[in-house]
Amino acid sequence: MSAKEVLEEKIKQQGELVRKLKGAKESKEKIAEEVAKLLQLKAQLNDGSEASGPPQKFTLKNPKGTRDFSPKEMAVRNSVLEKIIEVFRKHGAQSIDTPVFELKEVLTGKYGEDSKLIYDLKDQGGEILSLRYDLTVPFARYLAMNKITNIKRYHIAKVYRRDNPSISRGRYREFYQCDFDIAGSYDEMIPDAECVKIVYEILDKLNMTPFVIKLNHRLLLDGMFEACGVPKDSFRCICSAVDKLDKSPWEEVKKEMIEEKQLPESVADQIGEYVRLNGKTELVEKLLQDPKLSQNKNAVAGLEAMKLVLQYCQIYGTLDRVSFDLSLARGLDYYTGIIYEAVLLGDNDKGDEVSVGSVAGGGRYDNLVGMFDPKNKQVQCVGVSIGVERLFAVLEAKLATKNEKIRTTEIEIYVASAQKNLVEERMKICNELWESGVKVEHSYKKNPKLLAQLQHCEEFGIPLAIIIGESELKNGIVKLREVASRKEFDVPRNKLSEVVKEHLAEYAKQNSCNGSS
Amino acid sequence: MSAKEVLEEKIKQQGELVRKLKGAKESKEKIAEEVAKLLQLKAQLNDGSEASGPPQKFTLKNPKGTRDFSPKEMAVRNSVLEKIIEVFRKHGAQSIDTPVFELKEVLTGKYGEDSKLIYDLKDQGGEILSLRYDLTVPFARYLAMNKITNIKRYHIAKVYRRDNPSISRGRYREFYQCDFDIAGSYDEMIPDAECVKIVYEILDKLNMTPFVIKLNHRLLLDGMFEACGVPKDSFRCICSAVDKLDKSPWEEVKKEMIEEKQLPESVADQIGEYVRLNGKTELVEKLLQDPKLSQNKNAVAGLEAMKLVLQYCQIYGTLDRVSFDLSLARGLDYYTGIIYEAVLLGDNDKGDEVSVGSVAGGGRYDNLVGMFDPKNKQVQCVGVSIGVERLFAVLEAKLATKNEKIRTTEIEIYVASAQKNLVEERMKICNELWESGVKVEHSYKKNPKLLAQLQHCEEFGIPLAIIIGESELKNGIVKLREVASRKEFDVPRNKLSEVVKEHLAEYAKQNSCNGSS
Repeated sequence: MSAKEVLEEKIKQQGELVRKLKGAKESKEKIAEEVAKLLQLKAQLNDGSEASGPPQKFTLKNPKGTRDFSPKEMAVRNSVLEKIIEVFRKHGAQSIDTPVFELKEVLTGKYGEDSKLIYDLKDQGGEILSLRYDLTVPFARYLAMNKITNIKRYHIAKVYRRDNPSISRGRYREFYQCDFDIAGSYDEMIPDAECVKIVYEILDKLNMTPFVIKLNHRLLLDGMFEACGVPKDSFRCICSAVDKLDKSPWEEVKKEMIEEKQLPESVADQIGEYVRLNGKTELVEKLLQDPKLSQNKNAVAGLEAMKLVLQYCQIYGTLDRVSFDLSLARGLDYYTGIIYEAVLLGDNDKGDEVSVGSVAGGGRYDNLVGMFDPKNKQVQCVGVSIGVERLFAVLEAKLATKNEKIRTTEIEIYVASAQKNLVEERMKICNELWESGVKVEHSYKKNPKLLAQLQHCEEFGIPLAIIIGESELKNGIVKLREVASRKEFDVPRNKLSEVVKEHLAEYAKQNSCNGSS
Repeated sequence: MSAKEVLEEKIKQQGELVRKLKGAKESKEKIAEEVAKLLQLKAQLNDGSEASGPPQKFTLKNPKGTRDFSPKEMAVRNSVLEKIIEVFRKHGAQSIDTPVFELKEVLTGKYGEDSKLIYDLKDQGGEILSLRYDLTVPFARYLAMNKITNIKRYHIAKVYRRDNPSISRGRYREFYQCDFDIAGSYDEMIPDAECVKIVYEILDKLNMTPFVIKLNHRLLLDGMFEACGVPKDSFRCICSAVDKLDKSPWEEVKKEMIEEKQLPESVADQIGEYVRLNGKTELVEKLLQDPKLSQNKNAVAGLEAMKLVLQYCQIYGTLDRVSFDLSLARGLDYYTGIIYEAVLLGDNDKGDEVSVGSVAGGGRYDNLVGMFDPKNKQVQCVGVSIGVERLFAVLEAKLATKNEKIRTTEIEIYVASAQKNLVEERMKICNELWESGVKVEHSYKKNPKLLAQLQHCEEFGIPLAIIIGESELKNGIVKLREVASRKEFDVPRNKLSEVVKEHLAEYAKQNSCNGSS
């Protein structure tokens, strides 16, 4: 065993000890002591590896919960993101960017219990920094810092959460968020309805049908809790319990309310009656007549707001996929008005449409920006976050099922040589075509085999190839080959760019007619 | 003073103490002790703020050396990046992505002295992680880990360096890198010449003329040092000294060689003769006849390689802006073959073209991937990194000089109302246009003032507006207004989409003819 291996073994043992102590709920002091020892051992390991030379002996891997993206994965991701950005821009969104880390203080007190999932940077003698946990808090910080009171922006970037990664369920520690938000003092439900429209357009464009966009309102939830007799200081924790209804049956949620949150069973049962309801405007009307809710100010305000947003959804053509759903609660504390969540639907065993996962969510948060303002000045905001990681996964699965080939490059034509010593001829032709804007490549080998060159075309789905040979060049011609059909044409060398461009235009036309990519 | 302020004052004092001790080169133990106290104080501050409620009392700011990007800055950045990506893809590059952090071990031993600039993450009980310092090392790790032996890829992402930020000189701690690399065993200088071509195309496309791409070769530098009598173990440090010639005059560099690197003056003088040379193929030929260099194996190999790459540059049409420059050395240790650097040229007082800054650089690094392979298996690589941050800055300065307005949204048409109570009409029209693919927006206020709506169009450079009024709607028409000329047309309400699309097509045609954006 090398010194390093000995050290690694010690670290492993010490790590196990710490886990054991934590499991046994030992005293904090005892645990802290052993954690300190662990950190010291790790620091030693680190010092050692600074000095050691290559090649290195550690296991090559990505940090836990992260991954690389191959060209194929990137091709899917880029095409999805392009489509989403197109929708955002169609609605007039500007783009902004913020740093990947923030002063830790900026994130403090924004995520409740989940704060423990924040990645901190090491104190290297400067500021105390943390990696961003979402894009909403940096957005609010940006607005407050720059005193911006109205903006419509999108932001697509990675965020970081030290969650237990569940690779099989597509949950990672580094993942994309894709946010659209409207900040400003506007009239009720007009920007809110446009956020719903944007979710609708994106899912439609990505062929994610069937889907449903569930809507609810925090005021209605508060009013409902109040009307059912939930103590005011339990609103948020009961809300969190309701939020679990998308994954757990009512019976379990009810049990949590009674046993963990100390709610009387009768109160829980009343909530249970409401949260099973969903519908559209007719449900709003019915609830406005409800003996309990109609007496509650918050509930009525929430219901009136729902009525308005459903009316706007009708105008924006989204109502067919919208559902007013009283079980929707959303986890985050900071929502103050409408909340929504889009879920994809699949068929269950009985052929009924059931949710197969949330792919977008958001709502109104009118009090967040004020938390950053010294005078607590508020900026009203409503926004939506597209769950792109899940969309990527769904699309990749679809492509795999259809066995569809994804192109990872955009090369239109490959310049191949049939004999030796033609590398400079290939380079000349490539250069001519690059100059006229054609996407072209050739082998980086001086004398590649013709078969290898043609295989490259097949592998990368390149539609056309130029094949040059000595005798043809002497006669002033080159061969143009359609890779799929293997048809070949003679083309005068001095008209090459022209003819190639004609062929590419023809090819593009055919492909857009076929609807293939 | 609040408890927090007292703590902050203590931290400030303790920080000053630590800096003083470091400045006075006190013993490591003493410094470590005081640093530990400092960290403990900071940890206390942190615990406290977890509990405190909003609004927060700290100064709102970005972490040192980082910044937000406003919609205007993003518009410039996005347009530059799009153009660069277009060139990369024209040459057949695929895209990949890697996590923002790596296991610290991956970065260890790759950056020499600069390792101290790496951002580490806090040990939160898991792996020891660091933020990436560049995109080249993660690329090499990706190749070794996935056993990829050939790929042509680009990667555009932010990297992190705890450098002293110099905002005035555009140096930040978080900045974009924009890399293109070709990995694989190919024939000499063929991929290398294409990297030069790519730099040429990008700078040309961004109108960054005049520029020059300096080329040199590490083997030639080694051979030259050897021929001049530099001891072998001083090659890299003399190389670093030569690298400073783009910023310092020869006399200073010579002084450094003699005083700091202990080189005899006669040796430094010989190097001085060579590093003032630059030219093209004729210089290669001359140096191949040089009495000292022609006797040195490395020098001759380097010169033969330079001859070949210049020949390929001639074919690729880049020779006019290429300069074989013996003063080019590049800072990084890992280069093994050709090196290059593109600099923008400006006029000095005398009207001569002088360098105003490096905007791209790169070279061949055949030994880096092997550092990650347990059997030290090498993958040959050559690549280039585009200095996009400097390109952004140059472009922004140009735009500011020309007083050119940059559009931050793509909205083509704005739907305005001339009277009250028309919000639903506006929404209907927006929806129709969205459905037919038009980029459109309207006010989120129920009854906005007409003037405010038209001002919005001017502010955001929206070319067309639709203005609806009650009497016109009754007569089945709406007004279409050209924002710039203030010309208005009546359009039948039921032909709106059609007419709008015709106008937009006409507008696009005019603008592409004018060459404006």
